[in-house]
This record gives sequence, structure tokens and C-alpha cells, in this order.
Amino acid sequence: MRNKMSISPLRGTKYPIPTHSDSNEFDAFIRNNHTKKIVAVQGLGFVGTVMSLVVANSDESEYAVVGVDQATSASYWKIAEINGGILPIISSDPLVSQYFEESKARDNFFATANSDAFALADVIIVDINLDVNKIKDKENNLAAFDVPMEDFTAAMRTIGKVCKPNVLVLVETTVPPGACRKIVYPVIKEELESRGLPTDSFRLGHSYERVMPGPNYINSIKNFYRVYSGIDDESADAVRAFLETIISTKEYPLTRLKTTESTEMAKVLENSYRAMNISFAIEWSRFAELSGVDLYEVVDAIRLRPTHANLMYPGIGVGGYCLTKDPLLASWASKEFFGLSDGLESSVQAVERNDKMPQYCFDFVKKILDQYKNSSVNIGLLGVAYGPGIGDTRFSPVEGFYRLLSENFTRILLQDPYVSHWTETSLEVETSLPVFFQNNFDVLIITTAHNDYVENDKIYKLIASADKQPLIIDTVGLLDLKKLSSSYCQNNNFYVLGVGYNEE
Amino acid sequence: MRNKMSISPLRGTKYPIPTHSDSNEFDAFIRNNHTKKIVAVQGLGFVGTVMSLVVANSDESEYAVVGVDQATSASYWKIAEINGGILPIISSDPLVSQYFEESKARDNFFATANSDAFALADVIIVDINLDVNKIKDKENNLAAFDVPMEDFTAAMRTIGKVCKPNVLVLVETTVPPGACRKIVYPVIKEELESRGLPTDSFRLGHSYERVMPGPNYINSIKNFYRVYSGIDDESADAVRAFLETIISTKEYPLTRLKTTESTEMAKVLENSYRAMNISFAIEWSRFAELSGVDLYEVVDAIRLRPTHANLMYPGIGVGGYCLTKDPLLASWASKEFFGLSDGLESSVQAVERNDKMPQYCFDFVKKILDQYKNSSVNIGLLGVAYGPGIGDTRFSPVEGFYRLLSENFTRILLQDPYVSHWTETSLEVETSLPVFFQNNFDVLIITTAHNDYVENDKIYKLIASADKQPLIIDTVGLLDLKKLSSSYCQNNNFYVLGVGYNEE
Repeated sequence: MRNKMSISPLRGTKYPIPTHSDSNEFDAFIRNNHTKKIVAVQGLGFVGTVMSLVVANSDESEYAVVGVDQATSASYWKIAEINGGILPIISSDPLVSQYFEESKARDNFFATANSDAFALADVIIVDINLDVNKIKDKENNLAAFDVPMEDFTAAMRTIGKVCKPNVLVLVETTVPPGACRKIVYPVIKEELESRGLPTDSFRLGHSYERVMPGPNYINSIKNFYRVYSGIDDESADAVRAFLETIISTKEYPLTRLKTTESTEMAKVLENSYRAMNISFAIEWSRFAELSGVDLYEVVDAIRLRPTHANLMYPGIGVGGYCLTKDPLLASWASKEFFGLSDGLESSVQAVERNDKMPQYCFDFVKKILDQYKNSSVNIGLLGVAYGPGIGDTRFSPVEGFYRLLSENFTRILLQDPYVSHWTETSLEVETSLPVFFQNNFDVLIITTAHNDYVENDKIYKLIASADKQPLIIDTVGLLDLKKLSSSYCQNNNFYVLGVGYNEE
Repeated sequence: MRNKMSISPLRGTKYPIPTHSDSNEFDAFIRNNHTKKIVAVQGLGFVGTVMSLVVANSDESEYAVVGVDQATSASYWKIAEINGGILPIISSDPLVSQYFEESKARDNFFATANSDAFALADVIIVDINLDVNKIKDKENNLAAFDVPMEDFTAAMRTIGKVCKPNVLVLVETTVPPGACRKIVYPVIKEELESRGLPTDSFRLGHSYERVMPGPNYINSIKNFYRVYSGIDDESADAVRAFLETIISTKEYPLTRLKTTESTEMAKVLENSYRAMNISFAIEWSRFAELSGVDLYEVVDAIRLRPTHANLMYPGIGVGGYCLTKDPLLASWASKEFFGLSDGLESSVQAVERNDKMPQYCFDFVKKILDQYKNSSVNIGLLGVAYGPGIGDTRFSPVEGFYRLLSENFTRILLQDPYVSHWTETSLEVETSLPVFFQNNFDVLIITTAHNDYVENDKIYKLIASADKQPLIIDTVGLLDLKKLSSSYCQNNNFYVLGVGYNEE
């Protein structure tokens, strides 16, 4: 029987999923680290992997970190790469690979699919996903949504089945507020009880990172404010004691909230606030475009007021794993756990509006491209990641935009400095900007505001020296009109989403 | 025939509306100021009056200001008071009365109902109201709304009928974006033409104040960032030249936007953003209360993030003249002037949600008061103004709250340091806090976050020394639990809107 494979989306490497146990390697790792406390991190995604690196690189070097993920085709490659000395993340933050090299030198970071690893852990950090199912109608409206808690609950049971009775379980996963008290605590307690173990020394806390994948990836975990709570006072104290050993809490003091519901709510409230602020920009974009107004100029003028500094610019839309679902998690919990009859309508509407942004962006672009009477115009798309400086394409707004564009135009090429294979579309992406520019595009569309494009005026120089001056459509407000139309560039075929041109 | 009367809502003084012209007094004022430029301010409301004071007190002392309002029972009292040496505004900002005294000493501020005054003006500042008609259904939902432009258009025609051909008209009124180009400009031009005058030297600009009635009333006009625009370049230049003589533009540089639509949009966008942020807090208040969370604690924790610093606290609701209608003005203009099919749905919804906040606040209070089995419990309401530090009760959320409360409870007394007569309800209001406390209330409800209450711990001392310790419900997050429950106060009957208590 051939092994199933797990393919790395970063490099395309194929790893056979092993059928044998890795207990020999794991035992050796534990022997090498027998003086250290064991921290298990459940889930090796964009948060769990970097959280592992931060714990492994704590100043006192007191922890050995075991990253636990699943032996599935979607996840096993991360385990294989970490143990093979390859970082399963591409990041513009040099600290990420520096921390990884450091943990290899210390030999205090091991990855495994074997959940027995939780049995040795003094601290278990929960960084698994918790997804929302969205059901869309034909017009892309959010007809319904659901939060299936089964996988999350099963993961908590996995911990409860083997963990020490005095373990600290620290939930970092974004959960529906109420989940720690209503799910995590009773499930682990039940498992401890059924194992005949005491349940009064087990600690449960909640604290969330504010990770920003990108150039400050590590520092967004290590050097930033963080809130925390415990299911009881002892738990909160234990969380504090642990966080103080891995985070710069002197410069960024911890904030303790009264209940786990409070920190759980803080997390989804934060992201709902941001999602709502972004959604607010959509309607005003249309208004600006119709009335000949430059919405960027208007937003800049307004942001001078400190009370309005969080006002967002227009753009192609919201992507990533958090803002696209956290408001729904919150609304779901308010109904299902606490009986709020209408849920959080405005937060749900924010997600709904944001999900329509790629369609709106396409309409904007289409109107401009209608000047080309043929569908084989040569289009270059700059950026497929959901945000600047990262290679994460999950729920990228560029995906919906690309799908609409490709229904209308046949020749579209893709570029992104952080993505070579676009998992969601199975398309290849050029990472080199100069190579990409050899295609002599008729149209360039900026779809991700990667700073790489404008660093050292790179893109302006490439545009200036192109054989043919392309029409440029900026959907994210990255380019500077002054530079584009300056002496060395002189490209005036330039449109920006959120800027009206009908008055000219 | 007896004169009609105009009653000052501030002091109850009755002024007979004169039937004779004030041209003698006006002529004398103009003679006394013959070396100065004449600035006419159309509309003597909360903005126009203070704007008049700022212009009259410009550093160079180069202007004589004529404030123009209508000889109606609603407005004439302002004219009578200004010319009688009484400030028609009660403000916690000492600069307001200082500026008024100064203008009296200079004799460069005169008020009149005679629109012929516009004929002499070099600059006309438009500060009149522009209202929105809201139509509510039985559940207080916003069934429809309309922006009747007739009065505004008529006011512009009044100017056009008499103004100099080289006048600068500076619109400060919050208008539907597009109004300067589509209404003000053509109306004044038409009137100049019909008078046989040239139309090419008339200047039209738009700039909006960010006035904050309250302790920084004057400075919010004089010392703050401001954006401006003109219908053409000459107009924009003229606006800049004028504003530079009255505002501290060195410390707070002016921002010039490309079109009048841009500044008109900036104003309503600013206020829509704020209205939306406040509306966002409602749903989360309910969620917090149901899940035993202290939303204040959560918001404080989140606001540590600079990207989230504009997150609002929960409260009784939104009031005042601007935030309750500006999002509707914007939506109306986007449809009527520019054909945006759905208008600005999320901004309209923000107004709708905010309008329901008093009802929600009442439900919160009612649940607590249900412990008193009789409807004659002795209730004291602290604050009827729509916001802290001001006496403005227009569209105050306390009004809706009070009406609901009074349907259920028979003994309610009112206090507000800035309001003695509540125009909208025709009720008397006690201005002295110690006098108010002599009523030995069973229940105190804080409905406006006036700083006066907590200054020098005033309210805590009064509560501590009360014969009977009242139940206290804070709907605006003003009071400090630590102070209330400290040794000298020991009042633990304390509830705050946005804080859940069901876990206790």
C-alpha cells in the first residue's frame, strides 16, 4: 500500500504521510530536553507555528515545545518540514527564520501528529482552527451561517484523555464567547473524572494573540499588549505566570479581564470592529466615484482628527482567516449560548458587505476595461495574498475578483512576491516582478498593497521602462499618482478604486 | 394688535417680536464700523453664534459681524438677547462669554432679522439648519425619511437677491454632498443675473467647523484642523484667505480638497463614521449584559491598540443635531443627486439603531426597577442634555428614555447643570445638585455624563451623606464603582448599562 501524500503549498514538496509511530524520535527529543518544561501547541497554522517559535525562544530557554497537528494531507507537510529543518511559513519578517534556526540549534522544537504528546505537557496552548460555514445565495448574499463545534470539542477531548491533572490549558483559538466555560472546561473535566483523576488542579485560561503576519510577525506576538483571563482566579494567575515568561510584559503590560467570556468577547469584538470599519468604506467608495470625489483625499483629511483616526481607506476587500468570520462567531454565540434574539445584526451585515467587495471591485474595473473591445487584452494582476507583506491567500478578496475577471478576460497572469502556488485556484504565480514585466501588459491591476512593489520605486521604474505603457488600475491605493506621472514615468492611464473621475 | 412673543428657552424671558424695522440701529452699527469689512452670518444657532464671536474677535479686529436670523417665535429671542447684551448660549467654556464681552466692548457684533444686511457683506457665512424628516413606524423603526430642500434654497435666494456681485459666500451648513454645485451656485447666479449684475466675481466655498459645544467650544472652531474647498480655484483661494484671518491655521494647517463635493462629503462621512461606531456598541451591550461581561473593561482593553482607539463605549444613545441626521443627508444625496441605487444602507442603519438606544436603555433600567413593586418609587434623573458639558437638548436620547420611564413611573424629577427649562418636554429642570439631592431618591439614574457630577467627587459625597442610600443606575459609564463602594460611600446598589451581572 502506497502512503498518502501531503503537499507543501509553499514549495510544492510532496511528503508521504507515515503510517508508523514517531515515538522513538519523540522519546529522544524528550530525553534531550529532560530539564525543561514541556509546552505543547495544538495546531501548527499561522499562529501556532509562530507561537511555538516564540515559546521555544523564551529568554530563559526553559521550555521544550512540541507542536501537534494532524497526519492529514492538508496538515502533515508542516510536521515533516519542521522536523526536517524547513520553516513551513514564508514571511517578510526575518525574525521568523532566525527564531526557527535558533530553536533547531537548541533542539527544543519538535512536531508530531501523535496526540499522546499532550500527556507530557505542563502547558497546552490551543491554536487550532474553528471555522464558520457560510451559505451564500446566488447574489452572493449571506443566506445563513453555522458554527459546527464538533471538531473543536473533539480536540478538547483529545487533550482531556491524556493530559496531566495539573496541566494549564491556554486557549488562543478565536472561539464563540462562552466556549471556554460551556465546552472546554466541562469536556476536559469529564475526561479527567472518567480517568479517575482529580479535577481541581487543572487550570484553564484564555488569552488571544494579535498576530499580524507580515514584517512584524514575531513582534506582534512577543512585543504587544495582550489580554488574558482564567476560568477561576488560580487559572488566571497561572496564565499570567506563563505569559510573563514568553512575552515582553514589562513594556506591554498584560490586561486581566474578569471572565473567560470577557477575553473571548474582546477578541471577536476587536475583529468585528475592524470588519465593520472596512465594510463602511464600500458604500462611500461608490458614492465618491459617482460624485467625482477622491475618497483617499477625504479620508486623509478626516483622519487628522484623533477621534477618527481608525477610519479606513477604500479597497478591494477583506480577506484572511479572522475578519471574514469572527463577527459571525460572535453573533452565533450571542444567540446560541446567551439567547440574544437577533444576534449581532450589524456585525453580520459587515461580513456580508465585505464579502461583496470583490464583486464591487470587479464592476469598477470592468467599466474601465470596456474601452478594450476584445476579451484577450493582456492583463497582469499584482498580488494574490489577502494583505500586504504576507503569503496567506486564505479567503483573499483577490480570489473572487480573479474569478469574475477570468469569466470576462482570457489572458490574465499573476504575480505575488510571497506566493508561487495559489492553493485556492491551483494557479501558478510569478514571484519576480522584473520577470513578470517582460509580458508587456496592456493592463496592470494592483490587487494587494505589497510594499515590495513600491520599495525603491521598483514598480515605477519598471513601468517607465516598459515597451508599452500599460493602463493601471489600483484597487488598493498603493501607487502614488505624482510618481506615476512624473518625468521619468509619465503614465497617466491611471485609475484608483474609490476615486471618481466623472468630473474631468 | 399685540406683538407675537419669542421666549428664551435658557432663561424663560419673553421678547415681543418687533414689527418695525431696525434700520436705524443697523445704520448706526455700520457707521461705527465703517473702516471694517462686514461679515454676515446667516443663522444664529449653536454654530452661527459662536462662529460670529470668533470672527468678531479675530486678531486683526478687522471685521464687523452682522448675525442674521428670523423674526419668528423660535428665533427672535437670540437677536433680542445679543443686541441686549445677553449671550444666547449657556456654555461651560468661559471663552464664550469672554468673546461676547469683548465684541460688545468693540461694538462689532450686531444681530438683525433684516436680510437686507447681506447687501453690505463682503463675506456671508451660511450657518442655517438643514433638517431631515424622519418617519417612524410603531416599533420606532425608520420607515422613511426625506430632506426638504425648499427652506435652504429660499435662504440662498435671499442672499442672491441683495448680495454684492463680488461677495464670498462660505457655506458651513451640513448639506447633502452636491448641494453647493447643484443648488447654491445656480440659485445665487440666477439672482445676480436677474439683477443685471456680473456673475464672474462672485465666490462660493464650502468649509465645515468641527464645533464641540462644551468646555472647548471656542477652541473647537478657532484652534482645530479644518478642510475647505471652492466651486472654482478663485473661490477656494478666497476661502483660504478669509479662514487664515480668523483661525489658527499656522498650528492647525488648512486642508484644501479638490471640489465642494469633497468637503461636503467629508463632513457627513465624519459624522456617519461616528454614528456607526456608536451604533455598533448597542448590540454588544446586550451581548455583554447577557453573558456577564463588563463591556467597559473589554473596550478599555481593546482601545490599547492604536488601530482600535476609536471604539466607543456603550451608553444611553446618540443625540444632538448632527449625528442623528447627517448619515441620512449623505444617503439622500447619494440617491437623489448621484443615482446610487441603494443609497448608503449601513449609514442609514446606524441612525436607525441609534434611534432605538433610548428604548433599549429603558428596557435595561426597567428590568432592574422591577424589584420595586410600585410605580411611585422616587426617581431622580441626572442629565437631560444630549451630551456632557452642554445645555443642548435637541434630539437628546434622554427624551425618549424619559417618555418611556414616565409611562411606567409617576414620580420622576430632573436635574441638569446646564438646563433649567427642557424645551422638548416643557418640563422644569433643577440646576443645583445639592438642592436636587434633598429629595431623598429611591433611585438615581445617570443619563448625561456631565463632568460636573464627578468633579471634586461631588456626587459621591452627596450620595454618601444622603439619608437613604439610593439604587444607582449609570447609563453613560460616568461613575466609578471603586469610589461608590469605598469607605465613605459604601453604596453597592449600582448598575451600569453595558455590564452584565447575571454571573454573580
